[in-house]
Amino acid sequence: MPLSGIRILDLTRIISGPYCTSILADMGAEVIKIETPGEGDPVRRQGVIKNGLSWYFANYNRNKRSVALDLYSQEGKDILRQLIPTCDVVIENYRPGIMEKMGFGDDALKALRPDIIHCSINGFGTSGPYRDRPAFDFIAQAMSGFMSLNGGENDPPMRAGPPISDLVAGMNGALGVLAALLRRERTGRGDSISVSLMSSMIGLLSFQAANYFASGELPPRTGNDHGIVAPYGLFETADGQVAIAPSNDAMYDKFLDALALQSLRSHPDFQANADRMLNRASIKAVIEARTRQESSRYWIERLNQYGVPCGQVLNLREVFDDPQVADQDMAIDVPHPDGQQVRMLGFPIKFAESPCQARTPAPSLGGDTEAVLRELGLPEDRIQELLAKGAA
Amino acid sequence: MPLSGIRILDLTRIISGPYCTSILADMGAEVIKIETPGEGDPVRRQGVIKNGLSWYFANYNRNKRSVALDLYSQEGKDILRQLIPTCDVVIENYRPGIMEKMGFGDDALKALRPDIIHCSINGFGTSGPYRDRPAFDFIAQAMSGFMSLNGGENDPPMRAGPPISDLVAGMNGALGVLAALLRRERTGRGDSISVSLMSSMIGLLSFQAANYFASGELPPRTGNDHGIVAPYGLFETADGQVAIAPSNDAMYDKFLDALALQSLRSHPDFQANADRMLNRASIKAVIEARTRQESSRYWIERLNQYGVPCGQVLNLREVFDDPQVADQDMAIDVPHPDGQQVRMLGFPIKFAESPCQARTPAPSLGGDTEAVLRELGLPEDRIQELLAKGAA
Repeated sequence: MPLSGIRILDLTRIISGPYCTSILADMGAEVIKIETPGEGDPVRRQGVIKNGLSWYFANYNRNKRSVALDLYSQEGKDILRQLIPTCDVVIENYRPGIMEKMGFGDDALKALRPDIIHCSINGFGTSGPYRDRPAFDFIAQAMSGFMSLNGGENDPPMRAGPPISDLVAGMNGALGVLAALLRRERTGRGDSISVSLMSSMIGLLSFQAANYFASGELPPRTGNDHGIVAPYGLFETADGQVAIAPSNDAMYDKFLDALALQSLRSHPDFQANADRMLNRASIKAVIEARTRQESSRYWIERLNQYGVPCGQVLNLREVFDDPQVADQDMAIDVPHPDGQQVRMLGFPIKFAESPCQARTPAPSLGGDTEAVLRELGLPEDRIQELLAKGAA
Repeated sequence: MPLSGIRILDLTRIISGPYCTSILADMGAEVIKIETPGEGDPVRRQGVIKNGLSWYFANYNRNKRSVALDLYSQEGKDILRQLIPTCDVVIENYRPGIMEKMGFGDDALKALRPDIIHCSINGFGTSGPYRDRPAFDFIAQAMSGFMSLNGGENDPPMRAGPPISDLVAGMNGALGVLAALLRRERTGRGDSISVSLMSSMIGLLSFQAANYFASGELPPRTGNDHGIVAPYGLFETADGQVAIAPSNDAMYDKFLDALALQSLRSHPDFQANADRMLNRASIKAVIEARTRQESSRYWIERLNQYGVPCGQVLNLREVFDDPQVADQDMAIDVPHPDGQQVRMLGFPIKFAESPCQARTPAPSLGGDTEAVLRELGLPEDRIQELLAKGAA
């Protein structure tokens, strides 16, 4: 696997950090998740719980080992100090400054292992006026400008449904770690990486940011309409709605052919895209009068035949029942020790030679503590002593 | 830089592929962008154009070289065949099967360079019933289930404002390429990677997917409300709105302290989170009666003092005027040959030792054709002949 032999110390919890380390674990890295004894990652208690297991936790912590360590205790810190030199990478999502306070700032990490790669996933960055603020996905969505672009024209600014600032920050963390590993392979040097929820969201502002920079004009929220193309969006059919995206004039022509509405070509209101933008509502009405005559299925097939990008708006049941999603293995069933088959998201990155794998289910809290301490060379009585004390 | 010395052949256009290669270019890779002579990437003509330059194109194509090649001509294909062995990675976002048709399928690529890394960025995957369908960001957002989770309870399913399926697919492509490069460094073997817009969006379904898998129940759209926590969301102030995310009971307590509404603690309707969920509207009304008395700025400062995650909903002007965003260099000015300082998005991944850099502005169409052909060892008269023919 791409990351076989890479060992990662995972000091993260909740979702941005665990998503980052799960991407790397799915690619074959050995991830050692440090959790507070008796308590563990709060996500263990979040979402729908079946047979005592949070399927949310199971999804984002597959392929990891769990070591319970009380990092407030001297013993816990000592063990961490012994663990770090055995790891290629340390990933954490504490607030900036906490690692230093714990005695594991960049200099301390480097002293323990000169070529260490350290990745901090944080809310706003490791410097700047908001550095110490508590962060949260919703807040990053609000402060990044993302919400100002999301939602309908007459809606309030809208958060994205899934926690995308956590997820995209996790992806940026994994990108940084992989790039640093590659550099280390070629130079022998480690690095220290910071990614924040807020900057990760700003990184998604795309053409809206470019247009704002160039024009100084604030882009509006356009809901499901395209900012500069019409017709475009959701169209009603006999039994639902279809998303249709004829993104240029050539596509618009094909769209009219597929609808058998070639007569619209000579309609004075709908000549150029600029005319159609002005008459967006009326062209939509003409098109929907036609699309309402047939089923969504009919239109999906017909429009695809004509090469017009389209698709149904699927809910999660329809998504995971969809033959394409099945073909792409985007839901996988992972056997767990108690006999549960836990369904979770599959791997969006497909390697032909070295595919991502679900090698092991999410660990029980501290399930690998003894094994990892033994690997460190701790004598058996010392291990039992630490466990008895609650330090591990 | 992390990717210094890595050479990437970039056969992508529009946004998903160019975003993928720009992530790698920002990290130091040499990216050779192949464009159709006289036409080039359509994004050159999209978004706000200043002095003939699309700032959208400039953002996503900085740090790249442009080589014009007519891949429909035999000469163009011959040059590509000579270029491939000089490149570590080939990235393309053609529909699946097109590379094979052009004579550059995986086997052909491998024959040209045995350890080549090939990355396909596509709509739905390289197999399955929808493999050949035309793809588009909006359609992937619809078909992935993302739209079913985005928007208010009473809204229709809503697309995200920015083209996030393009962007997240680009990020997944870059993750795959970096992992494959690392594996090549250690095994000498290349790989072939596929990422799709649809699977990339499914990869973001997060706790909503986990809860659906565990319960069989479809998650609702909740707009700016949290699915399982109240109070939470946007609250009106004297001069605007503030996003507030007290995500657990301890935070809720701090929130009441910050509001000086400790009396709510004994209110029978608001005891546990479950009660507050049932009485979401009434607790919101009580809180807003208080938050409306002061400015957003007042509340941001006060809530942060109390450790309650909060922030303003910023529009793009406010984002790029924000001192934290400035501190994090999330807008950078890149000098262009015509004297324009082009403002573009900064780098969300911060490396301490080997930072991402804007080394060169986006290239003019074919601006590096002659230099790259010369590097290939083509004689000067042959280069001039190809240019004259329009093949390069």
